Amino acid sequence: MLEQTKYYEDYTIGEARHTTGRTITETDFVVHAGHSGDFFPHHLDAEFCKTLPFGQRIAHGTMVFTIGVGLTATIINPVAFSYGYDRMRFVKPVFIGDTLRSRVEIIAKELMEKRPGYGRVTERLTVTKQAGETVLVADHIYMVECKK
Amino acid sequence: MLEQTKYYEDYTIGEARHTTGRTITETDFVVHAGHSGDFFPHHLDAEFCKTLPFGQRIAHGTMVFTIGVGLTATIINPVAFSYGYDRMRFVKPVFIGDTLRSRVEIIAKELMEKRPGYGRVTERLTVTKQAGETVLVADHIYMVECKK
Amino acid sequence: MLEQTKYYEDYTIGEARHTTGRTITETDFVVHAGHSGDFFPHHLDAEFCKTLPFGQRIAHGTMVFTIGVGLTATIINPVAFSYGYDRMRFVKPVFIGDTLRSRVEIIAKELMEKRPGYGRVTERLTVTKQAGETVLVADHIYMVECKK
Amino acid sequence: MLEQTKYYEDYTIGEARHTTGRTITETDFVVHAGHSGDFFPHHLDAEFCKTLPFGQRIAHGTMVFTIGVGLTATIINPVAFSYGYDRMRFVKPVFIGDTLRSRVEIIAKELMEKRPGYGRVTERLTVTKQAGETVLVADHIYMVECKK
Amino acid sequence: MLEQTKYYEDYTIGEARHTTGRTITETDFVVHAGHSGDFFPHHLDAEFCKTLPFGQRIAHGTMVFTIGVGLTATIINPVAFSYGYDRMRFVKPVFIGDTLRSRVEIIAKELMEKRPGYGRVTERLTVTKQAGETVLVADHIYMVECKK
Amino acid sequence: MLEQTKYYEDYTIGEARHTTGRTITETDFVVHAGHSGDFFPHHLDAEFCKTLPFGQRIAHGTMVFTIGVGLTATIINPVAFSYGYDRMRFVKPVFIGDTLRSRVEIIAKELMEKRPGYGRVTERLTVTKQAGETVLVADHIYMVECKK
Repeated sequence: MLEQTKYYEDYTIGEARHTTGRTITETDFVVHAGHSGDFFPHHLDAEFCKTLPFGQRIAHGTMVFTIGVGLTATIINPVAFSYGYDRMRFVKPVFIGDTLRSRVEIIAKELMEKRPGYGRVTERLTVTKQAGETVLVADHIYMVECKK
Repeated sequence: MLEQTKYYEDYTIGEARHTTGRTITETDFVVHAGHSGDFFPHHLDAEFCKTLPFGQRIAHGTMVFTIGVGLTATIINPVAFSYGYDRMRFVKPVFIGDTLRSRVEIIAKELMEKRPGYGRVTERLTVTKQAGETVLVADHIYMVECKK
Repeated sequence: MLEQTKYYEDYTIGEARHTTGRTITETDFVVHAGHSGDFFPHHLDAEFCKTLPFGQRIAHGTMVFTIGVGLTATIINPVAFSYGYDRMRFVKPVFIGDTLRSRVEIIAKELMEKRPGYGRVTERLTVTKQAGETVLVADHIYMVECKK
Repeated sequence: MLEQTKYYEDYTIGEARHTTGRTITETDFVVHAGHSGDFFPHHLDAEFCKTLPFGQRIAHGTMVFTIGVGLTATIINPVAFSYGYDRMRFVKPVFIGDTLRSRVEIIAKELMEKRPGYGRVTERLTVTKQAGETVLVADHIYMVECKK
Repeated sequence: MLEQTKYYEDYTIGEARHTTGRTITETDFVVHAGHSGDFFPHHLDAEFCKTLPFGQRIAHGTMVFTIGVGLTATIINPVAFSYGYDRMRFVKPVFIGDTLRSRVEIIAKELMEKRPGYGRVTERLTVTKQAGETVLVADHIYMVECKK
Repeated sequence: MLEQTKYYEDYTIGEARHTTGRTITETDFVVHAGHSGDFFPHHLDAEFCKTLPFGQRIAHGTMVFTIGVGLTATIINPVAFSYGYDRMRFVKPVFIGDTLRSRVEIIAKELMEKRPGYGRVTERLTVTKQAGETVLVADHIYMVECKK
């Protein structure tokens, strides 16, 4: 983990970074069910899933989001605060054995009128799997301090 | 778990249900760090957190979302598909020992022009803690089959 | 989860419900060993198990019971209390990849002489795997309030 | 773990052993919920439990059984097979922070008429907590090979 | 678990014992990453590992050590205290599906000059996998009470 | 996570870095027992521990090592390979609620005679708790490629 103080003014639209990869295992499916309490057969019942179009167990949307965000959690910015997410979309299903990787890119910034001294920075999260297909997108909104 | 087939036409704006509660424990914090890979000291370092405004460890946003959604995972609708989430907001911090409860309410529905035979249904998720304070909101978008 | 108040008088012999399915994974074997502290090689040592009649790792009896019961935990009856289990039998082994499903049926009821105002209700739990073979049975005894 | 071959003839009624102790933590409650899929508020919702007679979260019966049995899993007898359990009773509730300890005692043995060369051995499991109160009892039935 | 009081004088150079086996699963890899916080792609990214000489995910050294030591944790000696380890070496990689087994042998003992009444006992830990290949060695140093 | 290629020649004796902190929770104790299979009462039985000098549960040595090392796992050097550890010492006990932090410092380097093109680099790991007391030290030995 790296600590890096970065003020509103320091963000540039278009700057991006990408993460290492992580293979999503059957273990992650089981852990996520137990952690979230969501035991839907779409995620946990291999026999039932054989009767569905994809023919196999599909990752929880909340897990793809959680791990996709978790992969980016390597730089602490003490002057930025997570505000929320917009337009999260589950673009493609994630299966056991898929390898996820995240990319974040600054796509917008604007001063916050209602909160002087702060700016709103939007970082687009794109989670892809091995062959490069996008599985999830979401826009992460940060509230970031301005330089004094 | 209950299976309940509910077509686009069956959804009524304003219909709502709420869930049982679940106390968020230190265990959930540790499990979520290990599951997501996010070991930020804001979630895991009690000494560091004493120096922050809240004075204690704060739940991962992805965990509040995951458990808030997980609490609602009790009814399977085989003709509804999760499409994504809009306007997820972290309204208040969640601390160790807080008890979460979710409420979902149908707030919008419209036929999908680009996808005949399907409608888009928006369900607002509101996660609250013991005293009734809202900690997270998000709009869950479903794609739901129409009756033939 | 559904809350449903059901008094002693409301139970009918023969009424039954069955659950969704859940595939038992290698993860469940490892989690159960770590949770129970039972690391017998019959459950965890694939090489050793090749030398046994079944030729593969066999689920802990306590796990088949725990998950078999857990699958039924979808309806809360605030006037019923779990008293114990009779005649639990491990009928067939459960292997990694088997999909379990539970069925519960009311098989007996009688007023409790020693505890006026309560009845004893017996619910038979039958856990089966994909091809319909029974793997575990047990009789769950509830103490249920009578209507006043 | 100890391997110890013990034939039907080697069992004596009244022989007993007791285990080391294990403190049941909030973690065990959360892990058991996630493993079993049983998220009843009796086990996980501290606010709800304040309104119940015990005033606090109560361990899952399946967990007390699983850990009570797990504590005894230190001696492998290659000629004994677990057959099932009789008369499992939840005698007292287990709370977070209670320390469990198990005792097993051989209480019955008889040759199996239907299965020559095997005997049925009954081992009574008694799980107690710190002050010595019994929390769970169950009779474990083994099928044990006779000496040739 | 067995309690066995064994004083410094009771240890003999050359005495040894070996443990039961345990298959290392993909679950163990994922659990260890989440427990340690080490999400290096060498352990978790199957795609990346295809580009490395071994062609597959490799166990964390800390996990091989932890499980190798854990396998030996069956005898409690109340007069021996763990002091540390010398010369831990990762001799061969451990892959998903390998079955580990540990052997410990007393290789040295000497009285502690600086701490009268105590001796230093060195136990060599050797962790092997199925075909008998050594994967890890380490010398465990105990401080053991002398008889009075 | 940061990838940083650093050859043998690039290491300087005395260079050091320290990590963020992580509070060791009761959850970590329970997870480590379940992961390692070491259920010694020194780590898990709060009642038994009241009778010991420290009066409370003590962390597994393998856990302090695993988490101490895990905290440093933030920089991948593709030309360095972990070879083993020397002189690991458990200096002070770690209790539930202690906050750990690691520091690593290069303390030695030498070319490997038997393996031309590689050098041996020794990094001292020092794990401390909140008040600055050292709880564990170990010397991590890397085999590092030389520049061509």
